[in-house]
Amino acid sequence: MADKTANAMWGGRFAFGPDAVMEAINASIGFDQRLAAQDIAGSRAHAAMLAAVGILSDRDAEAIREGLLAVMSEIEGGTFRFSTALEDIHMNVESRLGELIGEPAKRLHTARSRNDQVAVDFRLWVRDQCDAAEGALVALQRALLGQAERGADWVMPGFTHLQSAQPVTWGHHMMAYVEMLGRDRGRFADARRRMNESPLGAAALAGTSFPIDRERTARELGFDRPMANSLDAVSDRDFALEFLSAASLCAMHLSRLAEELVIWSTAQFRFVRLSDRFSTGSSIMPQKRNPDAAELVRAKTGRVFGASVALLTIMKGLPLAYSKDMQEDKEQVFDAADSLMLALAATTGMMEDLQPDPERMRAAAGAGFATATDLADWLVRAKGMPFREAHHVTGALVALAETKGVDLSDLSLGEMREVHDGITDDVFAVLGVDNSVRSRTSFGGTAPERVREQVARWREMLG
Amino acid sequence: MADKTANAMWGGRFAFGPDAVMEAINASIGFDQRLAAQDIAGSRAHAAMLAAVGILSDRDAEAIREGLLAVMSEIEGGTFRFSTALEDIHMNVESRLGELIGEPAKRLHTARSRNDQVAVDFRLWVRDQCDAAEGALVALQRALLGQAERGADWVMPGFTHLQSAQPVTWGHHMMAYVEMLGRDRGRFADARRRMNESPLGAAALAGTSFPIDRERTARELGFDRPMANSLDAVSDRDFALEFLSAASLCAMHLSRLAEELVIWSTAQFRFVRLSDRFSTGSSIMPQKRNPDAAELVRAKTGRVFGASVALLTIMKGLPLAYSKDMQEDKEQVFDAADSLMLALAATTGMMEDLQPDPERMRAAAGAGFATATDLADWLVRAKGMPFREAHHVTGALVALAETKGVDLSDLSLGEMREVHDGITDDVFAVLGVDNSVRSRTSFGGTAPERVREQVARWREMLG
Amino acid sequence: MADKTANAMWGGRFAFGPDAVMEAINASIGFDQRLAAQDIAGSRAHAAMLAAVGILSDRDAEAIREGLLAVMSEIEGGTFRFSTALEDIHMNVESRLGELIGEPAKRLHTARSRNDQVAVDFRLWVRDQCDAAEGALVALQRALLGQAERGADWVMPGFTHLQSAQPVTWGHHMMAYVEMLGRDRGRFADARRRMNESPLGAAALAGTSFPIDRERTARELGFDRPMANSLDAVSDRDFALEFLSAASLCAMHLSRLAEELVIWSTAQFRFVRLSDRFSTGSSIMPQKRNPDAAELVRAKTGRVFGASVALLTIMKGLPLAYSKDMQEDKEQVFDAADSLMLALAATTGMMEDLQPDPERMRAAAGAGFATATDLADWLVRAKGMPFREAHHVTGALVALAETKGVDLSDLSLGEMREVHDGITDDVFAVLGVDNSVRSRTSFGGTAPERVREQVARWREMLG
Amino acid sequence: MADKTANAMWGGRFAFGPDAVMEAINASIGFDQRLAAQDIAGSRAHAAMLAAVGILSDRDAEAIREGLLAVMSEIEGGTFRFSTALEDIHMNVESRLGELIGEPAKRLHTARSRNDQVAVDFRLWVRDQCDAAEGALVALQRALLGQAERGADWVMPGFTHLQSAQPVTWGHHMMAYVEMLGRDRGRFADARRRMNESPLGAAALAGTSFPIDRERTARELGFDRPMANSLDAVSDRDFALEFLSAASLCAMHLSRLAEELVIWSTAQFRFVRLSDRFSTGSSIMPQKRNPDAAELVRAKTGRVFGASVALLTIMKGLPLAYSKDMQEDKEQVFDAADSLMLALAATTGMMEDLQPDPERMRAAAGAGFATATDLADWLVRAKGMPFREAHHVTGALVALAETKGVDLSDLSLGEMREVHDGITDDVFAVLGVDNSVRSRTSFGGTAPERVREQVARWREMLG
Repeated sequence: MADKTANAMWGGRFAFGPDAVMEAINASIGFDQRLAAQDIAGSRAHAAMLAAVGILSDRDAEAIREGLLAVMSEIEGGTFRFSTALEDIHMNVESRLGELIGEPAKRLHTARSRNDQVAVDFRLWVRDQCDAAEGALVALQRALLGQAERGADWVMPGFTHLQSAQPVTWGHHMMAYVEMLGRDRGRFADARRRMNESPLGAAALAGTSFPIDRERTARELGFDRPMANSLDAVSDRDFALEFLSAASLCAMHLSRLAEELVIWSTAQFRFVRLSDRFSTGSSIMPQKRNPDAAELVRAKTGRVFGASVALLTIMKGLPLAYSKDMQEDKEQVFDAADSLMLALAATTGMMEDLQPDPERMRAAAGAGFATATDLADWLVRAKGMPFREAHHVTGALVALAETKGVDLSDLSLGEMREVHDGITDDVFAVLGVDNSVRSRTSFGGTAPERVREQVARWREMLG
Repeated sequence: MADKTANAMWGGRFAFGPDAVMEAINASIGFDQRLAAQDIAGSRAHAAMLAAVGILSDRDAEAIREGLLAVMSEIEGGTFRFSTALEDIHMNVESRLGELIGEPAKRLHTARSRNDQVAVDFRLWVRDQCDAAEGALVALQRALLGQAERGADWVMPGFTHLQSAQPVTWGHHMMAYVEMLGRDRGRFADARRRMNESPLGAAALAGTSFPIDRERTARELGFDRPMANSLDAVSDRDFALEFLSAASLCAMHLSRLAEELVIWSTAQFRFVRLSDRFSTGSSIMPQKRNPDAAELVRAKTGRVFGASVALLTIMKGLPLAYSKDMQEDKEQVFDAADSLMLALAATTGMMEDLQPDPERMRAAAGAGFATATDLADWLVRAKGMPFREAHHVTGALVALAETKGVDLSDLSLGEMREVHDGITDDVFAVLGVDNSVRSRTSFGGTAPERVREQVARWREMLG
Repeated sequence: MADKTANAMWGGRFAFGPDAVMEAINASIGFDQRLAAQDIAGSRAHAAMLAAVGILSDRDAEAIREGLLAVMSEIEGGTFRFSTALEDIHMNVESRLGELIGEPAKRLHTARSRNDQVAVDFRLWVRDQCDAAEGALVALQRALLGQAERGADWVMPGFTHLQSAQPVTWGHHMMAYVEMLGRDRGRFADARRRMNESPLGAAALAGTSFPIDRERTARELGFDRPMANSLDAVSDRDFALEFLSAASLCAMHLSRLAEELVIWSTAQFRFVRLSDRFSTGSSIMPQKRNPDAAELVRAKTGRVFGASVALLTIMKGLPLAYSKDMQEDKEQVFDAADSLMLALAATTGMMEDLQPDPERMRAAAGAGFATATDLADWLVRAKGMPFREAHHVTGALVALAETKGVDLSDLSLGEMREVHDGITDDVFAVLGVDNSVRSRTSFGGTAPERVREQVARWREMLG
Repeated sequence: MADKTANAMWGGRFAFGPDAVMEAINASIGFDQRLAAQDIAGSRAHAAMLAAVGILSDRDAEAIREGLLAVMSEIEGGTFRFSTALEDIHMNVESRLGELIGEPAKRLHTARSRNDQVAVDFRLWVRDQCDAAEGALVALQRALLGQAERGADWVMPGFTHLQSAQPVTWGHHMMAYVEMLGRDRGRFADARRRMNESPLGAAALAGTSFPIDRERTARELGFDRPMANSLDAVSDRDFALEFLSAASLCAMHLSRLAEELVIWSTAQFRFVRLSDRFSTGSSIMPQKRNPDAAELVRAKTGRVFGASVALLTIMKGLPLAYSKDMQEDKEQVFDAADSLMLALAATTGMMEDLQPDPERMRAAAGAGFATATDLADWLVRAKGMPFREAHHVTGALVALAETKGVDLSDLSLGEMREVHDGITDDVFAVLGVDNSVRSRTSFGGTAPERVREQVARWREMLG
């Protein structure tokens, strides 16, 4: 077992030999094998370009391109043998290519370096993750839209400080997250666009004297253009950090919804019921529904934040161009991406299955003079009272209701007029939670009609 | 003195009274007074809109708008008395407005809430900082372009692992940072565009029943549109976090240049000389030039990262809508923005004044068989050797030169031909650092002509 | 207003002059004036030592020591004029001393440097904060003990996943925090002990050729001994980071209690009522009690974490000995210490005032077959059933009760025996929440008697 | 290949099924198998105790204890089949135990829960890591002592701002790190002591009604005592965070030494030569010695900081007792511990092999009037001049030497006396770097005799 050995190692004198240490430092194949598809795509584009500009013969290039496909098949088929002695994915692939096709394999590395090769591979991988995030975010938005549509007019408490403040609609609450996730998508899209330049051809750091065509390789790999400075191309990892930043903000958003699901699932709230698929129970405590998936989503946030801090720390104060420190970039991004994707998948599943309890929510929304602000607004709007005075009158009416142990709508007109004689019969139209939410028709407001408009707008945008 | 008191406080029994604690919690005027201009702009737009839709009389609106200008003058003039009892900038301004114009001031807060008010203020402030960052980044890019232009063909070592790897040009190195900063500008611009929606009219959280015109206030405040969900508008701070993310990446870039300046300024490197204005010396050690400004720039990175972690932590797992936790958002952003602006200013000043030493750099670039890769590339390019074989021949030539204690270019053709008889006289055209950098003409490469093209492109873009 | 100016600054061309930038970089007096008392104590000890070893005359030393007391009085009295031109607290104090006592002031700086001076000052300040944290933590422990004592036998739900799992006692829950805070105290104490060595006499970095007596100054300043390596003494800030680590863990603990207070204060839980002093309300929504203080405590956590990340980032990769980067250490620690002290004060106040609602908690504890595990344990304990079988039988009994819509204790013995005929009459003694908590008498368990023992133990330890 | 599948998954519609998501959430066996030895030790102690207090028969307990050893053998031998369906290490072990010994295995889980079981396992694992860190730190201290001993009187520049400030000795510089690492050891030791309490017997969260003997299990597992509060025992992870804090500070220290190694290894400094075992070269650039190991050590710092931030974030605001979020604790600690151990091993190896170049260092130390402060101190010490005046005279002498293009020691006595006529012949004894370092004999100073004393003290302490 690994740890027992480790403990022995450190027991008395330091017994972890230099060779083992350097292997642990130099070999990245344990994790960078995840870049295999990207590495092969990059090499195929490079070979085609070398032939196009006359550095390679068409025949050699074709052999290389076919050979690389064969290597990819072996990797996908699980028959490829990764070798730690060959250190990284680049050498593993090139070595196998040599076994398969012989001499032309030795010409593949012309006019490039491991520095630009790894920069291309990693950039392609992160770009794929931006696309994956986009897909997963759209899926979650759809799940939320489904909830919003069903409950566009379900009334629930709108909280501040986790205290009921004003009634809102379930649909409105769901749509708040649709907006947040929309901005998250925007961040991933911007990151993708900004990183979508090709480092290939930067070579070790200075560019090359071969007459290469960087536009061509960029195009074949789906990049918008080649990067304009070879030192920058091999030295920076801001594209990975921008991905981590976008992931951190997205994870933060998810953690807020997860927290709400945990709270709403308590016996005390019971606003929602998570499906069996996304909760765990106890055979001897049947009412217990542990919101495991929501808790995990909340926790993964820490993991994504941690990855971002790790890579920022690594890059701080590094002189140009390549330093070995930068080999530590990939595992952080892999872990954060995996965590985010799992969190998105879990949240989508939970929201698709979620069963809200409109009765419980409605009852909670009505407690605590939740429509007092509606009354104050009515005094301003219908009676022309200055806002600060309306606030004062409302306070008196609430105090009266509280004394009598009733809700505002249970006061008679006469009782109200004793507090302020300008109050008229139409006051009752603004009391009650349904009236309240229906009245808040300002753009972006919680009124069901506004919510439905937003749902429709998003449906159209998502296509 | 503050700390003595504090120590007394905690001496035996806890003596920091509840009132003092709650004041410390609730009062934000100590820091949010920085939002004064934004608060007043927001209120002026709100008043104009209330009049336009008939909620306020034109006369009241005019009194409010004029009164707010008067308040702003007092603040700018330093005569305004901020009151802790009034807690925050919003109440300080509104209260003073009441003193100045009387009754109409009580109508200003109609159809809004402190929740959307602070969201507007802070968003406007962060938007201004995006603009400030853009301006400061352009200034730094110009300083770097100046360096690049002067030294487009100065040869220096291109480092990997801080070991000399291949010769590059000073201009090329400078332009690497121009590219990085260009992406930083893109991130601030994207953040600005994404945050440029108006929360005003979201009211406390649910929207309002007043017939407000959110498009109008958005327009007056320079926003592209109102935010589409009132809960989202008052609950999220992702715009501040996105600013902090962009600031973190930018600070990371600056820390790398700062590290290089510190290293290049050592007695051992002496690649550059910082001006007196950006270094400090010792009256008794005249050759000491402490790169204080560069060290500060490097250190400020930590401060920006810390602010980002702080706000991410604060927002993690917060249920909607407003929680008091969110009051902690502003100081983090203020501090990070100040730190970044100072770092940008210091870096710009240093780079404007910086005196590189082309002779020292050139000498360093030539040491250590720095053009060995040029030789290998030549064997491939001119002699059609496979890359891996060319690499082998080059190793043999370097070994020969090392044995003789000379540089590659000092070997005779005869000596070279003993190693490989295909070598011809034109080999000498690829040896030597000037030849090396001149040859790397691939797009984005270090050749002076490529550098000058990039300088020209950026000059045009910066206008 | 500061920001308007700042914006103007960055408008077109960079207009923040080099002098202003360098002043902002070099001047620390804006924040290090908080070190005044420590600086003066350090200088007084240094002067006394210089006289004792014969470097200063007794007369000069006495003049310096008296003069420094006079400076301290001015600072405490608020009449001292801090000067930015004099950069830092050290020069401000020394300069004023010169005005007060003349020539002897010029001899004070013999055999020391600003490097060891600031290291002493800051170490003394952080040491004081360890003591302050100890005091504040004890105060909070006392408040929790008060709660634990009152409610040693109040039954409440013990939660896992925020779902009711098993009944526990209020006192037990309170005592869990007493334990956590006890470990926090241990961390501050360990940090204090480890940092309690004197850097004074390290001089700039190499020690000095003067025959100084470092033991003496260490003793006068309350240090255990002088630091054993002068380079280390001026280069490291691990003592400040260890303080920040302890503060981070403590803040994390406080955030958990704060979260519970927020949740327990909701209308849905109503387990506790915060006092008016630590919550805010709404004049028109009388039942709203916003737990502002608890939310603030939760949020301050981010601030402390952020400070820790900031200083770790700053120190990462700094070569020995002093670098300007290290000037950024103080503000981070000041801010984190202030945040922690405020959080501790607020939590103590809340817990002193807190009114739990034992009825609400007891009712919640009994729901959901919360004593099913007690039943299973009884089957093992009293009937010798293997644990996994007992679990199965309990599941069947719960299912029966659920079908009948009753609680476990409402089943008749006959009904129970139909499920398993070994069940006997004494089963009823283990059902019911009071029986449950009373039975959990293992060391550290939730039984009231165990809780009272722990309260007594802590009372004795706190003295 | 994993990623291709992942990409397909997220292509259009969300296709990562709920079962796969929940398995990914619930199954921890992928990482917690590292806790196997600890899990088995905990279960063996638990079984022995159950028998001792009469809950289990001696025969059953013996069968369990023997069976668990058999399971351990299978795991160590690599023949154990871990099952994801069994979720975690606890169930994997218990299930296999059942296969091996039958019925008694069902009685093992009496009077405990997975909550206290995992708390025990993880605590034991982290405790082992504290011991491993101690061992590795001692090994590194020994390597540094070796360097210090060899070079106790080798003169090198003492840097501030990476500028030469005063001469120091190589041994003194090495011993600075010995001190830092000594404090790191103290932090791990304190963390170990504080965490060394047993959570076993806390059961799910409330303790148990079985008459267990927690002292006994604590003793068998090497704990100092059982934890005093069962809720605390299963809820807190401060012990893991304290380990991460100590690891972060230690990694920070290592990053500083690593940075120095990178800088000292440059062609410009050449203060040291890393061995072939801890650097990589280039077959065609023989003078290139990439300090890969040092760069890795520097980079691992980010990884450790990131883990700390991740777990702090996860724990922030979690209500008691267990939440699923806490399952995310282990991978962070595993990764940070592995990173730290590798960094320590690499640093030890580098320092053991390191070849300093005393000539290069000495030459660098003498440049730039490095003994000017010695001259100033001599004027105070030998001539009774006030410090500030001595500083002024020294400045004048340095200016004179600079004008003449010579070093201070090259000025004649006559020339010196023209600047200040009190200067006498013995001034020459304080000039020159050897005189300088020899003179700094204050406790903790850089004088070779002081360094040798410290080496001896540490040799004795390390035994």
